[in-house]
Amino acid sequence: MSRVYNFSAGPSTLPESVLLRAQAELLDWRGTGMSVMEMSHRSKEYVSIAEKTEADLRELLAVPANYKVLFVQSGAFGQFAGVPMNLLRGKTSAVYANTGIWSGKAIAEAKLYAEVKIATSSKDNGFTTIAPRAEWVVDAEAAYLHYTSNETINGLEFQDIPDDGGLPLVCDMSSDILSRPIDVSRFGLIYAGAQKNMGPSGIAVVIVREDLIGQTVKGTPSVFDYKQQADNGSMLNTPATYNWYLLGLTLEWVKEQGGLAAMEVHNKAKAEKLYAAIDASPFYSNPVDPAYRSRMNVPFRLAKPELEKTFSTEAKAAGLVTLDGHRSVGGMRASIYNAMPQAGVDALIAFMAEFERKYA
Amino acid sequence: MSRVYNFSAGPSTLPESVLLRAQAELLDWRGTGMSVMEMSHRSKEYVSIAEKTEADLRELLAVPANYKVLFVQSGAFGQFAGVPMNLLRGKTSAVYANTGIWSGKAIAEAKLYAEVKIATSSKDNGFTTIAPRAEWVVDAEAAYLHYTSNETINGLEFQDIPDDGGLPLVCDMSSDILSRPIDVSRFGLIYAGAQKNMGPSGIAVVIVREDLIGQTVKGTPSVFDYKQQADNGSMLNTPATYNWYLLGLTLEWVKEQGGLAAMEVHNKAKAEKLYAAIDASPFYSNPVDPAYRSRMNVPFRLAKPELEKTFSTEAKAAGLVTLDGHRSVGGMRASIYNAMPQAGVDALIAFMAEFERKYA
Repeated sequence: MSRVYNFSAGPSTLPESVLLRAQAELLDWRGTGMSVMEMSHRSKEYVSIAEKTEADLRELLAVPANYKVLFVQSGAFGQFAGVPMNLLRGKTSAVYANTGIWSGKAIAEAKLYAEVKIATSSKDNGFTTIAPRAEWVVDAEAAYLHYTSNETINGLEFQDIPDDGGLPLVCDMSSDILSRPIDVSRFGLIYAGAQKNMGPSGIAVVIVREDLIGQTVKGTPSVFDYKQQADNGSMLNTPATYNWYLLGLTLEWVKEQGGLAAMEVHNKAKAEKLYAAIDASPFYSNPVDPAYRSRMNVPFRLAKPELEKTFSTEAKAAGLVTLDGHRSVGGMRASIYNAMPQAGVDALIAFMAEFERKYA
Repeated sequence: MSRVYNFSAGPSTLPESVLLRAQAELLDWRGTGMSVMEMSHRSKEYVSIAEKTEADLRELLAVPANYKVLFVQSGAFGQFAGVPMNLLRGKTSAVYANTGIWSGKAIAEAKLYAEVKIATSSKDNGFTTIAPRAEWVVDAEAAYLHYTSNETINGLEFQDIPDDGGLPLVCDMSSDILSRPIDVSRFGLIYAGAQKNMGPSGIAVVIVREDLIGQTVKGTPSVFDYKQQADNGSMLNTPATYNWYLLGLTLEWVKEQGGLAAMEVHNKAKAEKLYAAIDASPFYSNPVDPAYRSRMNVPFRLAKPELEKTFSTEAKAAGLVTLDGHRSVGGMRASIYNAMPQAGVDALIAFMAEFERKYA
C-alpha cells in the first residue's frame, strides 16, 4: 500500500494517524467487544465519545459558555435552510455577502424563507476580491449578516472577521474552521460541514449563541430546530454516530499538533510557498487578490489550458491526485487543508516545476 | 479481542465480515492510496461505490424501474418531515396508523404540515395488537396512508402489507427493511434509517414512485426535496460518503447470505425460538398479540422486575449486551436484526434459562 497526496476539496485527506487509530479500533472499541458504529447512541460508552468530542471542540475554538455546540446531519447545505429557519426570529430579511459560489447557494436557499439583501457582491470582479467592509450595505433591521469565510471554488478567503454592523454575524466556516484561531464571541452562529478540516462527510457542526435560538419559522423540521437539538444534546434523533467519533479523532489530532495556533503556522507556510511558486512562474497563474487568497484552496491555471488533462494524468502518476478544478470553473486546484502535510505541497511544487520544464 | 453479542435496537450489531472488510480497506481502497472517506464524492471511484450500492439495493428489493432510490441524511426522523413536505402535493391531510411510539413521532411531525387523520390506534391496547385493516378509517381525499412496519420499542410488527385504500401507501421501514422479501410496487414511498439492517447511522434510504415527487410544500429545504435529490443522484449536496459505502458492504453481505428470502428464514428461526422460550417460562413474559409479534425486537419482562438490573449485569458478564428495554418503557429487550447470528440468540436463551434457575 502506498498512500497518495490527495488534494481533494472535500471530502478530503485525513491525518494518517486518525485513519490508523480508526482501523485499530474498528472491531473493538476499548475492550467493549463492539465497533463504535454498533453502539447505541444512548450507551454510556458512546455518550463519553460524544461528550469528549464536544469538549475538545470547545477547547480548541475557546467557545464561550453561552454558546451551544450542535452535531447535526445534512451538511452545511442543510444549514443554508436551517440558519434562516432558526435565526429570522420574526424578522423578514437577512443580509448576505456574496463572495463566491457557496455564498450564492446559501443566498438562493435563504430566499425560500426571507428577503435577502446583498451587502456586497464580488460577482463583477469574477470572485477575485472582496470590497472593503466600509463599502458594504448592511440593513440594521435585518435578522442577521451572513458570510462565507472561505470560498473553495474560487479560492477566496476572508483574512479577518468583518464588522457585524450590529447584527448577529453568521458564518459558513465549512472550509476553514480549525485552520487558524478565531474569536467565536464575535459571531451569533458558525456552521461547518466536517469534510474539510474535521473528518468525514455526513456530519456538520453548529455553534450558536444560546439567546438566538428557540423561535423557528413555521414548518421547520424538528431535526433542523437548533433549540430542540440543543435541549437533547444533538440526540433528538439518532445522530451520525461513527462520523461524530471520527470527527473526535480528528480534533484529538489537531490538539496533538499544538492546536489552532500551530495549524495557522502550518497552513500559512504551505499556502505561501505554493502561491510563491505560482507567482514566480510565467506558466502558472492565480487571479485572486493577494489580500484574499485562500490558505485552503489554491486554484491555478496553466498558460496552455490544453495541457490540463496531461497535468492531471502525470500528477496522478506521481502520486498527486484530485487536482482538477471544480467542474463549474475548470483549471486546476490544490486543496491543502490541515491534514495535508508540508511534504505534499513540496511534492506538488516540485512536480509543477518539472511539468513546466517539460511543456512550457 | 472478544466480540460480544450486541442486542442494541440501533445503532446495532453489524456482520463481522463487513467490519473486517472496512478495516482492511480503511487506509487504501483498492489501490487508490486513500480511504473511501477521503474520496471526492464526484470521483469516478466513489461514484462506482455509490452506483453499486444503489444497484444492489434495487436487486435485493426488486425495486421497479419507475421508483427513485435516494440516499439521504437526517435519518428517518428527518423524513417524518420530508414525507409530508414532498407527498402532500396540494392536499391538506394525510392518514396515519398509530401503532407505537415511532408512529406517534411521525404523526407529531406530520402535524407541522397537514391535518393528520388517524386510521387506527393501538394506544388503548398498550400497543400490543393492531386492529384488522377492515376496521381502519381511511379518507380517500387524503394525500397518503402512512404506517410503521415495525415498532422497535413495543415489539409490534405488521406481518402483511395493509391495503392502501386507494392512496399512495407510505411506510417507515427503518427497523425491518431487508429482513424479508417485500413487494415494493404496493408502496408510494418507503423510507428507512440504515442503523438496524443496513449499516451505521447517518444515512437513510428513500424509495419513491417517481410520479409522486416534484411538488414540495413552500419552505422545504432543498436537501429534503426528493425531486432535487433524485435529479442529482442524491448528490445535490455532499452525501454521507463513508456511511453510503458501509451500507453497500452490508448489502453485499445480505446478497452473500442468499438475499431476502434467506434473511426471512434466518430471522423467523431466531424470533420463533426466542418467543418459544419466553412463552414456555412462567418467569418471562411478552404481552404482544402473537399475530403481530416483531421478528426484530423482542421485549420481555421478568416476573420479578426488581431483578432487571441483575439480569442486565449478569448478561453483560456473559457477553450478551444492550438488553435493557427502551428508557420510556423499561423491562428487557433483545433486538435481533439480520446481523445477529443464531448463536447469539441461542446464547441468550441459555442465559435466560440459567438466570431463571438461579433466581425464579
